[in-house]
Amino acid sequence: MTKRSWTTHRDAKNAKLEKVAPMMDGKFVETENAKELLEDLIAPGDKVVLEGDNQKQASFLSKVLASVNPQKIHDLHMIMSSVSRPEHLDIFETGIASKLDFSFAGPQSTRISQMIADGTMNVGDIHTYLELYARLYVDLIPNVVLVAADKVDHDGNLYTGANTEETPVIVESAAFKDGIVIVQANQIVDKVPRVDIPGDWVDVVVQADQPYQLEPLFTRDPQNITELQILMGMMAIRGIYEKHNVQTVNHGVGFNTAAIELLLPTYGEQLGLKGKIVPNWEVNPTPTLIPAIESGWVKTIHSFGGEVGMENYIAHRPDIFFVGKDGTMRSNRAFGQMAGQYALDMFVGSTLQIDKYGNSSTVTNGRLSGFGGAPNMGSNPTGRRHSTPAWQSLRPDNDPLGKGQKLVVQMVETFGSNKKPVFVDHLDAEEVRKEAKLANVPIMIYSEDTTHIVTEEGIAYLYKTDSMAERQAAIEAIAGVTPVGLRSNPKQLADLRARGIVALPEDLDVHRNEAKRSLLAAQTMDDLVSWSDGLYNPPAKFRSWS
Amino acid sequence: MTKRSWTTHRDAKNAKLEKVAPMMDGKFVETENAKELLEDLIAPGDKVVLEGDNQKQASFLSKVLASVNPQKIHDLHMIMSSVSRPEHLDIFETGIASKLDFSFAGPQSTRISQMIADGTMNVGDIHTYLELYARLYVDLIPNVVLVAADKVDHDGNLYTGANTEETPVIVESAAFKDGIVIVQANQIVDKVPRVDIPGDWVDVVVQADQPYQLEPLFTRDPQNITELQILMGMMAIRGIYEKHNVQTVNHGVGFNTAAIELLLPTYGEQLGLKGKIVPNWEVNPTPTLIPAIESGWVKTIHSFGGEVGMENYIAHRPDIFFVGKDGTMRSNRAFGQMAGQYALDMFVGSTLQIDKYGNSSTVTNGRLSGFGGAPNMGSNPTGRRHSTPAWQSLRPDNDPLGKGQKLVVQMVETFGSNKKPVFVDHLDAEEVRKEAKLANVPIMIYSEDTTHIVTEEGIAYLYKTDSMAERQAAIEAIAGVTPVGLRSNPKQLADLRARGIVALPEDLDVHRNEAKRSLLAAQTMDDLVSWSDGLYNPPAKFRSWS
Repeated sequence: MTKRSWTTHRDAKNAKLEKVAPMMDGKFVETENAKELLEDLIAPGDKVVLEGDNQKQASFLSKVLASVNPQKIHDLHMIMSSVSRPEHLDIFETGIASKLDFSFAGPQSTRISQMIADGTMNVGDIHTYLELYARLYVDLIPNVVLVAADKVDHDGNLYTGANTEETPVIVESAAFKDGIVIVQANQIVDKVPRVDIPGDWVDVVVQADQPYQLEPLFTRDPQNITELQILMGMMAIRGIYEKHNVQTVNHGVGFNTAAIELLLPTYGEQLGLKGKIVPNWEVNPTPTLIPAIESGWVKTIHSFGGEVGMENYIAHRPDIFFVGKDGTMRSNRAFGQMAGQYALDMFVGSTLQIDKYGNSSTVTNGRLSGFGGAPNMGSNPTGRRHSTPAWQSLRPDNDPLGKGQKLVVQMVETFGSNKKPVFVDHLDAEEVRKEAKLANVPIMIYSEDTTHIVTEEGIAYLYKTDSMAERQAAIEAIAGVTPVGLRSNPKQLADLRARGIVALPEDLDVHRNEAKRSLLAAQTMDDLVSWSDGLYNPPAKFRSWS
Repeated sequence: MTKRSWTTHRDAKNAKLEKVAPMMDGKFVETENAKELLEDLIAPGDKVVLEGDNQKQASFLSKVLASVNPQKIHDLHMIMSSVSRPEHLDIFETGIASKLDFSFAGPQSTRISQMIADGTMNVGDIHTYLELYARLYVDLIPNVVLVAADKVDHDGNLYTGANTEETPVIVESAAFKDGIVIVQANQIVDKVPRVDIPGDWVDVVVQADQPYQLEPLFTRDPQNITELQILMGMMAIRGIYEKHNVQTVNHGVGFNTAAIELLLPTYGEQLGLKGKIVPNWEVNPTPTLIPAIESGWVKTIHSFGGEVGMENYIAHRPDIFFVGKDGTMRSNRAFGQMAGQYALDMFVGSTLQIDKYGNSSTVTNGRLSGFGGAPNMGSNPTGRRHSTPAWQSLRPDNDPLGKGQKLVVQMVETFGSNKKPVFVDHLDAEEVRKEAKLANVPIMIYSEDTTHIVTEEGIAYLYKTDSMAERQAAIEAIAGVTPVGLRSNPKQLADLRARGIVALPEDLDVHRNEAKRSLLAAQTMDDLVSWSDGLYNPPAKFRSWS
């Protein structure tokens, strides 16, 4: 019997790198050789991670990957947090890739659904971000990773700056398992402002033809916040933030939470809550937080990623944000999700559909969107052992061995912007499961994890319900004139209100006629710039002035 | 109104660093100045992280910290994964520290209990590792971190080698929030073998008087594995690993799981399971895995930390372990716990007590031990969305919106080594809660997360039970002659067996008389060395030969 080799991965990597040696200058390869590089460094069937979070995309490398010869490279197993760009799916049509494991597919969700139905793509599974990163170390260890950096020095040290995002957790999985780390650089420089990832971990650097794609996904123009959203925000502040004494929080993307952020310095101040609630945040640097920061509400913010236009403001607020010695922010999506799961009192999100039981999903007919970080942050980590007042306030009274629970809040208007009811008997996701042949219904947040639902009608305190029937009744009570809501009746509502399971605005001393836009600390993008002392620099598409 | 400062942390850090500038040579300070250094860099009331995982301890810095003048430094809020060394508690007696947040306190658990009772120490809370790291970014952001590295170069770049452990996640939390990063180095060198943490992130390096403390905590001598443990291992392999088609796994520390590791190449092989189960592991490099690795059972291992004596073996097995270009392993406790939570089919642990409901704890009277990683890995991550055959095999039949569940297995003999029953009506932890004034009972793994219990009597498939009464009956059925077990009766047992809720050895075709030590692939430390081709080098205390 011949002895087996224990270095097959290393040997394969070395053979690949030897092949490209003629086109390399140290770790560097010319932009125009990128296609040939990938054709030599990637083998058919390889597991390939292509970086793309919410905001930041390795857009040069994804374009190059889409241009390789499918005779040479085919049937790749792609692992991608975010399926965002057309070429992310083109590679499945040309046969370069055949299998996909992913987390989020916002802009491409319709096309993904179609490609699964057509059999063009084989979906491994949908993941929450942290779960996908976890598998990079266990059963989805990559052969090649394609990532993006702002600046790279001649030793291959990477500076990712404010948009560190998922780069470190991806690179580490390959660098220490004989995978190949390929980096696209916006700029190659003599000295990086700081080292975010050591050059030791990097195999190949290529200067990109243009800077990586970066989207200001977390910017919400206050002008588009409605009075209904303001009403919901007031209810949430009184009926949840104040009631439960919430200290640590994540806000999802959306106008509902933007309204809350802009109500803290006004309505929150009136209620005397300043210094009492939400000092510590795990959230992207959303511009609508600027007034709350400037007026002393927010003490610290750790972020998953950056936000276009906030760079200079952040650099001037190092007491609040995570900023390096070089003066720019460091983000970290893996650690941010870890914090979002285990260190927070509360997650506040939104969704497209909620079923009569309280399960919610953004997967609707024809759109396999994935869920990003929501399932992770919107779940109750049963491994948590530390107690805070908010968490402990959800402890069941009747169980001596009981413990607290994370507040998981869904904020929705009863009808969506498409005029369709948000509250439904059955999620579209049930149908999508069948079409896409998924193992389970793609639910974003399960009923059992959902502790509160806020609508324009009121708040349902689901954690207080004792049975599924009571939970359904609580949901019906705040579901307005949707088919689900129409099942509620006055007697049931009165009973739920009396027992504190449902609160209407009047129960919270919230007055509908006070829910005016004038209550927002900032009503326009210009107001945000003023609050920031001119340090916030909104992206062009959010500027109405010149 | 004067403008507020947004750089108070940075200013405080700079002032501290200025004070020590006279004793600094670049980032370096002489060993004999370490005490003065800490007295200048730490302020009363500071939040201080002192590194110490399971195995690796920043032992030089902890000794120096215990020697500072309590008039100068007092009332520190210590954040420590592991309370392992006497001086970790001495600092509370001298008043240098007053508050503690921690995860694990194995060797010091009795003394901690006493100090809490005496009021010498104020315990913030007990955490699982990942939860404690999460808070470093949200509500326990440190002012100073004290960590350990193997080698440091003149730019302050750190090489942590196989024992990377928790160093990166600790350092990042301070380096990017104007905290101070102080490193003890085993060795200062011209060039580190690789960069594990960039020098940019490091403020001060001090050469330690001796290498950091490192314990071979995961080494189990096969000689001490009993035939009862072999029987339990055979049952587990048939009744859990094979039955559920488990692919990805973590084994806790202990002889029970060591037995399983040594049965795979023998009993597992007989059953024809090779290539069918457990290729991918998240586990420390335990020597008892060597035969399973050598005989081709194990494909990949990612590790939280290193293990003394395994260095050379690992270096020669890069296909299996996470190894850097320099040829040595990289571990990572934060990513390991992330993987342990989200990427695994199964966690197999052990405990000191299990109550009649199935809650388990290692906290017993007079011992506040903490739980390390068990609550994290031994919990069902409700944010998980990907499906595997093992996970899906626990999906409830009667719920169209249901999903799978992580297998969380407790393996215990019905009586502990102290002759006390493991199965009890009430956990000692209930009493400890009162004594230590904890918010909740310090339960390690809750009943609701526990899917299987294995004893020498049989296996209880708790996930199949429909009610708490049935769950209790299943536990009684395998609890032997403990007071809990004596409540079981033959009729109940027959019914549970018929319904597949309990399996006895004969139900699994496991024969007690085959459970012999000769069935172990290695029966001594020497056998493990032979299996490793001489590459494994056991620590002195495990060597019976010269």
